[in-house]
Amino acid sequence: MTNADDSKTAPAKAPVKDPRELPDVSGLVVGVLGGTGDQGRGLAYRLARAGQQVIIGSRDAERARGAAAELGLGVEGADNAECARRSDVVIVAVPWEGHAKTLESLRTELAGKLIVDCVNPLGFDKQGAYALTPDEGSAAQQAAALLPDSRVTAAFHHLSAVLLTNPEIEKIDTDVMVLGEVRADTDIVQALAARIPGMRGIFAGRLRNAHQVESLVANLISVNRRYKAHAGLRLTDV
Amino acid sequence: MTNADDSKTAPAKAPVKDPRELPDVSGLVVGVLGGTGDQGRGLAYRLARAGQQVIIGSRDAERARGAAAELGLGVEGADNAECARRSDVVIVAVPWEGHAKTLESLRTELAGKLIVDCVNPLGFDKQGAYALTPDEGSAAQQAAALLPDSRVTAAFHHLSAVLLTNPEIEKIDTDVMVLGEVRADTDIVQALAARIPGMRGIFAGRLRNAHQVESLVANLISVNRRYKAHAGLRLTDV
Repeated sequence: MTNADDSKTAPAKAPVKDPRELPDVSGLVVGVLGGTGDQGRGLAYRLARAGQQVIIGSRDAERARGAAAELGLGVEGADNAECARRSDVVIVAVPWEGHAKTLESLRTELAGKLIVDCVNPLGFDKQGAYALTPDEGSAAQQAAALLPDSRVTAAFHHLSAVLLTNPEIEKIDTDVMVLGEVRADTDIVQALAARIPGMRGIFAGRLRNAHQVESLVANLISVNRRYKAHAGLRLTDV
Repeated sequence: MTNADDSKTAPAKAPVKDPRELPDVSGLVVGVLGGTGDQGRGLAYRLARAGQQVIIGSRDAERARGAAAELGLGVEGADNAECARRSDVVIVAVPWEGHAKTLESLRTELAGKLIVDCVNPLGFDKQGAYALTPDEGSAAQQAAALLPDSRVTAAFHHLSAVLLTNPEIEKIDTDVMVLGEVRADTDIVQALAARIPGMRGIFAGRLRNAHQVESLVANLISVNRRYKAHAGLRLTDV
């Protein structure tokens, strides 16, 4: 409650938690497909640390349980199908190469679920990272095409796994751009982001505008190389 | 001067001017093609206010001189060809529809010049803005293809014309992502951005990664609609 007076003392433009009413998401179970990778593990850790019930999913249930045990904080591990079945919100953090195949194979388990795609389709060569353009326009649009019975959103693209997984870092100083078609769904994702200290979830458009958000990671990789940083994004004037 | 104490009280990660040595650009003449439009006029105003010599270019020299006279601050107006010829750095702020044609017609005048493309190829429909994808990949790559004898960079995509043109606003609280192939050129553009109070120029990759930077404006438009804001971007940890 140290910031109770923010509205009086902070300059009008200072970053604050989204002032609009966001839903209470503290009771939702969050699954993370690809939860044994760096990005997935980092998100699982931050959400569990914020009090969320988290299940890590992997093709290999044993590997998922091992990663969960390392994280502690009540995190569970399961194979992808069980992770999807038991979760209310499913974060998709698999490598781009396995994105379509993984989602296709889980269509039944993911029906009705709120999907949060955070996959960045990128290629790499000697000059660094560059954007790949999926046939559907973006990873998020591919997810929406493959999962017609799910509620697909996109978010959490620009987070540094290095920062997420470092337990000594208390606050993740970044905004999370949240994309989707249905306000009730994007509100839930924004509320999830806002549970992590330092983060805000900001609505940033429909899925047809997901490609540039996903591929902006190529630019952040250039920033990180040049400045030896773990760059994140803030939206000013919001 | 109300924020004169910012440097003492701000947290360690607060936005600061790029700490690296940037070149002295105070003697460069900056031309703005499309300088009678909102974005171009706003940039011309801010750069002139920061002490830069600025020439506004337009197809119609009279219109350019009129816009220049309104801005004051020593800004001059000229037709596009004269603007290009007399400038060291040429900011391209024309509408996307006229982008290729304008640049093609100025190939000779723009030879050897440092080009800063800030054009955002966007479409609009009932659901708002969406990214257009130029055949060359991005507006900046189109400029590079059309101007083989110029030094092409891209920057200044995410600025709010409303804020730029409001004389009561002292500081523009945003980072400017600067893209290009040659460090000496991107350094100059970063230094130009840094002349405007509140702005930093941050190197953010090569021109092949310009598309997502250009089209991110579609997302900022969504942000602005939802939050009644004039959103800008900050890169954290830099």
